[in-house]
Amino acid sequence: MTHPDIPPSRTEDEEPPPEPPAGPCGSAGDDATARACLTAVADPGDPAMGALLEEYGAGVVWRTLRGGESPPAPTGARAGAVAQRAARWCERAARLDADALLAATVELGCRLIVPGDPGWPTQLDQLGRRRPYALWVRGAHDLRHACLRSVAIVGARAATAYGLHVAADLAWGLGQRSWAVVSGGAYGIDSAAHRGGLAAAAPGVAVLACGLDLSYPRGNEGLFADIAARGALVSEHPPGAPPSRHGFLVRNRIIAALTPGTVVVEAGLRSGALNTARHGQELHRAVMAVPGPVTSALSAGCHRLLRDGAAVCVTDTDDVVEQVGRIGADLRAGAGGTALDRDALDDTARRVLDAVPRRTCSGTASVAEAAGVGLDTALSSLGLLAAGGFVERGASGWRARNGPRPAPGKLPGA
Amino acid sequence: MTHPDIPPSRTEDEEPPPEPPAGPCGSAGDDATARACLTAVADPGDPAMGALLEEYGAGVVWRTLRGGESPPAPTGARAGAVAQRAARWCERAARLDADALLAATVELGCRLIVPGDPGWPTQLDQLGRRRPYALWVRGAHDLRHACLRSVAIVGARAATAYGLHVAADLAWGLGQRSWAVVSGGAYGIDSAAHRGGLAAAAPGVAVLACGLDLSYPRGNEGLFADIAARGALVSEHPPGAPPSRHGFLVRNRIIAALTPGTVVVEAGLRSGALNTARHGQELHRAVMAVPGPVTSALSAGCHRLLRDGAAVCVTDTDDVVEQVGRIGADLRAGAGGTALDRDALDDTARRVLDAVPRRTCSGTASVAEAAGVGLDTALSSLGLLAAGGFVERGASGWRARNGPRPAPGKLPGA
Repeated sequence: MTHPDIPPSRTEDEEPPPEPPAGPCGSAGDDATARACLTAVADPGDPAMGALLEEYGAGVVWRTLRGGESPPAPTGARAGAVAQRAARWCERAARLDADALLAATVELGCRLIVPGDPGWPTQLDQLGRRRPYALWVRGAHDLRHACLRSVAIVGARAATAYGLHVAADLAWGLGQRSWAVVSGGAYGIDSAAHRGGLAAAAPGVAVLACGLDLSYPRGNEGLFADIAARGALVSEHPPGAPPSRHGFLVRNRIIAALTPGTVVVEAGLRSGALNTARHGQELHRAVMAVPGPVTSALSAGCHRLLRDGAAVCVTDTDDVVEQVGRIGADLRAGAGGTALDRDALDDTARRVLDAVPRRTCSGTASVAEAAGVGLDTALSSLGLLAAGGFVERGASGWRARNGPRPAPGKLPGA
Repeated sequence: MTHPDIPPSRTEDEEPPPEPPAGPCGSAGDDATARACLTAVADPGDPAMGALLEEYGAGVVWRTLRGGESPPAPTGARAGAVAQRAARWCERAARLDADALLAATVELGCRLIVPGDPGWPTQLDQLGRRRPYALWVRGAHDLRHACLRSVAIVGARAATAYGLHVAADLAWGLGQRSWAVVSGGAYGIDSAAHRGGLAAAAPGVAVLACGLDLSYPRGNEGLFADIAARGALVSEHPPGAPPSRHGFLVRNRIIAALTPGTVVVEAGLRSGALNTARHGQELHRAVMAVPGPVTSALSAGCHRLLRDGAAVCVTDTDDVVEQVGRIGADLRAGAGGTALDRDALDDTARRVLDAVPRRTCSGTASVAEAAGVGLDTALSSLGLLAAGGFVERGASGWRARNGPRPAPGKLPGA
C-alpha cells in the first residue's frame, strides 16, 4: 500500500554526507549531532521517528523539525503517528540548545555513538524502527565487542537473598569464562549481577534509562563508576533526561537486543524483567529463566516463562553457556565428546595463539607482530580465540588462558 | 520375521474359559489363580512372561511350568529370554503352595484383580508385555475409577521441608478438586503427598513394591491403613514378597501408567522419581516437575527434566489440572491469553493508562492531553484498556482500576 503523503524519492542533496568530518561529539559530525538532538526531541524508540530517520536521514529530519515543519510520513509509517507527534517534536526542537547538549556530553566524559560508527553495536539494528537514535557511552570498553560475548541478567529490584546470590554467582561464573554481563542499573538482581561480573574481572555493560549524568538510583553511583572503569555505561537518553516508567520499558529492548541471550533470575508476575524476556523472544535471542521456590512470589514470573515454554530452565553457568555459546567453542561436549581443541584451529589462529603470552598481557599490535600477521588478521583471530576460551582480555591486552575448560558432560539417559 | 520355535496357532481347548466361575481369589477362577501363582514365579513386569501370557493365556503357562516344562517362546519374544528363565520358573512353580498363597490373600483382606476383571485399571494395558500379571488390592475403593481422575506425585525419600510442604499442598489442592493422589509408600514426598490428599478427604492409591502384608516401610503402617480405608493399597507382588531395588524400579511403571500425569516434586539427579517420569514420557502421559531453589541438590532432577523439555513446569494445583484435566470440565477458562498484562500494552496505550487517574475520574480530552496524544488515539486506547480491565468508565469519565485481574493466565504474547 502506498500513502498520499509519500514524497518523491529523496534526492542526493537531502542525504547526509556519506563520510562527514568528526564533530564535537567525537563522532561523525552532522548526522551524529542531529541524532543527539533528536534523542532530546522524540521519545526513545518511537517507530514513527525511526521511520523518518530511515527515509530521510537524521540531518534532514532534524533540520526540518528545527525549522518548525513536519517531515511527511515515509513509506509504511502511519501518517497519523507522525502528524500527531510533529507539533511536540517541533516545539521541543525549537527550545533545544544543541550546543549545550554537546558540551554536556563532552563534560561528562561520554562519547556519542550512532549507527554506522565502527563501535556501534550492530546487534541493535535488528530493532528496526525501534533502534535507538544514538547511544551515549561512558567507559573505555568497546561496546559492540563486549556485547558479542555477553549475557543479559535481569530480574526484580526487590529481590530475595536467594535471587541476589544466584544472580551474583551466575555472573561471576560467566565472567570467569569471559562472558560480559549486560543489565540495567537497578538495585536487586541488576546490581548483584554487575557485582558478580566485576568480581570476575569481566567487562560489564549497564544500560540506563536516564541521562548518564544522573546515576539513578543514586546509591549505585559507586557501582556505575566501577562499570564505567571496566566496561561501559550506556543510555539512549541525553544528559539530563530523568528516569521514567516508559523509559525503563523501552530501555529493556536494548538490553535484549545487545545480547545473544537473557536470563531472568527472579521476577514477580508483573516484573519488567518479563518485558525484557519478551523482547528477547521477539528478537529470537535465547531466553532463560532461573527457577526458585514455588512458594516465592518473586520466582512466579520465572516459572510462568518456563511453564509457557517461553524460556529454558537454567540453573548454573554451564546451562547458560549451553544456550548462548557457540558450538565447538563454548558448548559442553555431548556424551563423550570434547570441547574445541587446539587442533581444530586453523594455522593462522594457532600462530596468533602461540604469540599470546600466558602470564603477562600483550597488546594486539604486539601479538600481530609476534605472529607475523596483519593487525586485522590478529584482531579477528583473537576474537575467535577469545570466544573459544583460549585467550582473554586482561588489563593491558591479551593473555592466553589455560586451554579450554574441561567439559562436564550431560547426564546420560536424561 | 518368524521364529522356528513358534508353535501352531493355539487351539480352542488351550484357552482359558472366557467367563470362568468366581474362584477363591474372589475373581475369575482358573485364570486368576494361575496369574496369582505366576506373580510368585516370575519377576514382575518381565516381558518374556508377558509374551507367554499374551500367547497362551495364564492357565496354560502356569500348568506347563508346574509340569516342569518350558512353554515355547511365542511370536516376537526372544526364544533365549524364555529358555533362560524357564528353569528358574519351573523350580519356583514346583515349590509354590498355591493354596497357601490364596489363603494368605483372603486372610489379608486383599482381593486379586486380573486383566479382564471389571475393576482392572485398563490404563495398565498400555504397558503391553510389561503389564502386571495381576494386582493385589486392599481397600474398598474401585481402583480403576479412582485412577481415572488421579495424579501421580512422586519424589525423593530424603525430601526437604520445602518439598514436603509443596507435595502436601499440591495433593491437598488436587484432593479438594476430587483428584486422587497416586504414589509409592516411601517416606518423604510419597508420604507427604498421601497425607495431603487424605487431609482433603480424597481417595489415595499407594502402589507398593512388596507384598501387602509387609507394610514397608514399617513407620508408614498407620498411613497405609488410612489409605486402605479411603482409597487403595496396590501391589503386583504376592503376600510375603519382600521389597527389592528391582521391585521399586518396575513398580514405577505402574504409578506412571495408572495416572494421566506424574508430578515430580523433589528429586536428586539419581532419584527413582526420574525413572517414574521417564515411564510417564514413554506412555505419553503428562510429565510435570516442580521447580525449587537451584541451590538445592534435591531439585536438580526436577530442573533437569525442565531444561531438557521432558517435563512441564508446575507450581500449583491449577498448573497441574491444566495438564491433566479435561477441557470444559477442569481447565481454567481461556487458559492464558485473555488476562492482559500491562507489559503487553503498546507504548501509546501505556502512556494513556498512566494518564488515567486512580481515585477521581477524568474526561477523555483531559486524558488525551495528559498523555500527549490526540483525542482519537486516546479514545481507541481507552477502549482497549477498558476491555483489558485496566480502566473503567465512572460517573464523570475514566478511572484506572487496581490493575488487571490477577493474571491466572499465560504471559500474553509470550
